[in-house]
Amino acid sequence: MTSASDHANPPVADHSIMDPHASCVSDQASQDALSELRSMRGTIDNIDAALVHLLAERFKATQRVGVLKAKNDFPPADPEREKAQIQRLRALAEAAQLDPEFAEKFLTFIISEVIRHHEAISEDHQRADAS
Amino acid sequence: MTSASDHANPPVADHSIMDPHASCVSDQASQDALSELRSMRGTIDNIDAALVHLLAERFKATQRVGVLKAKNDFPPADPEREKAQIQRLRALAEAAQLDPEFAEKFLTFIISEVIRHHEAISEDHQRADAS
Repeated sequence: MTSASDHANPPVADHSIMDPHASCVSDQASQDALSELRSMRGTIDNIDAALVHLLAERFKATQRVGVLKAKNDFPPADPEREKAQIQRLRALAEAAQLDPEFAEKFLTFIISEVIRHHEAISEDHQRADAS
Repeated sequence: MTSASDHANPPVADHSIMDPHASCVSDQASQDALSELRSMRGTIDNIDAALVHLLAERFKATQRVGVLKAKNDFPPADPEREKAQIQRLRALAEAAQLDPEFAEKFLTFIISEVIRHHEAISEDHQRADAS
């Protein structure tokens, strides 16, 4: 992912125009930096929209899993599956140059939310069975 | 996202074959449920791989932003930008039928990790300037 401005202002050239004692040139540098920041933020916003849509699909899938588990009296959590998911995501993260610790924290964060949902579905199901 | 087994076993039919008193039919139902669970987990694993790769790209982008901010003495955090990001993601989440509360928690989780990185980059930069 290299923006057009990366090509226009290679890092080495940036250093020379960042001299704080050359105020006029420095203003131009700040303008360039701000426009580069805006461009990068556009990229981040696009990635975030994709992440939200994928997360929405993931929750649809886990919602279905939750209903299936409740119907069949499968336990909401599955520690063996979670261990395998964490190992796999750590390996994928490493290959993609993402901090594996972060990938694990991320998955744990998602799974804890999913289990909260599964427990709620399971309680609803038990309540429906008892009524 | 509807798996082949969803078509083969529509929810209404599932209820009748889930009768716990008909043990033989119930075994078949458990087998079907397990194979459906495996299929759904395959979908979740594919989504997770996509999420990890998008997160890796997001961190590459924020890493670049961190360097740009440190070089130009921009502050690591930007509360106005964060507020706008949260509002936007909540709206996107709502349109995608994802709990907006979860989308906000997710973004806060990611941003706190990013700020931690930015602060580290900023410290490294100050150390390099001082040496």
